[in-house]
Amino acid sequence: MTAVPLAQLPGRPCPVAATLELVGERWSLLVVREVALGAHRFGEIVTGTGAPRDRVAARLRSLTAADVLERRQYQSAPDRFDYHLTASGRDLLPVLTALLVWGRDHAVDPDDPDRHRYRDTLRLLRDRTPTPDPTQEPR
Amino acid sequence: MTAVPLAQLPGRPCPVAATLELVGERWSLLVVREVALGAHRFGEIVTGTGAPRDRVAARLRSLTAADVLERRQYQSAPDRFDYHLTASGRDLLPVLTALLVWGRDHAVDPDDPDRHRYRDTLRLLRDRTPTPDPTQEPR
Repeated sequence: MTAVPLAQLPGRPCPVAATLELVGERWSLLVVREVALGAHRFGEIVTGTGAPRDRVAARLRSLTAADVLERRQYQSAPDRFDYHLTASGRDLLPVLTALLVWGRDHAVDPDDPDRHRYRDTLRLLRDRTPTPDPTQEPR
Repeated sequence: MTAVPLAQLPGRPCPVAATLELVGERWSLLVVREVALGAHRFGEIVTGTGAPRDRVAARLRSLTAADVLERRQYQSAPDRFDYHLTASGRDLLPVLTALLVWGRDHAVDPDDPDRHRYRDTLRLLRDRTPTPDPTQEPR
């Protein structure tokens, strides 16, 4: 865990702000979305997010440092790496689902001509969301 | 509704990115948290977020334009205004709840000395989250 000391946060000492410290940058959440949807390689993540390559590279580094993504070698000579969600990264999927539901209801026109293009995204995110462990007590 | 045309988004045409266009800035989500927790006046929102005053002022303007917050006059001579969540703003509370749960589990040390200070935040956010309308079909 990359812990953010609550006392170091400006304002209210609250985990919402701690989360935003680690993953709150806009491209970070879109990188997590892409990996969740099956884009594991650098070029796929650049295409899916539409972010500049250097921003994607920086976000992949910070998300790996925050234990949200894991970097795996999939080829040698030349060495090549791809990115996968960690358990902590999979636990972010409810955040993406909540952002998607709000966007669908409040940020996208019901008649948007590209609306059909994300039809499956919500189902995919929900299917990949971990089921809460019933043996774990609520904190 | 302030609609974001999906075709204008970089990358995948997805409501997650549309949402982040409107409310994805870090201080925006913390301003929404503060209003949700009962901080309605400018000074209270500055204290609760810990954000610079000019950033709070800018975020209050953009959130009002995005129909997430509503500005109400509560005093005249001199005129004074405070901020309240709209129906669309209340629909953002599941996003804040998901961010809080992730932060509690993955971004805050279990032994953080300030952990007790947000104990009630999750309950407050959940209590104020609108119940989904059962007559509305899933989209």
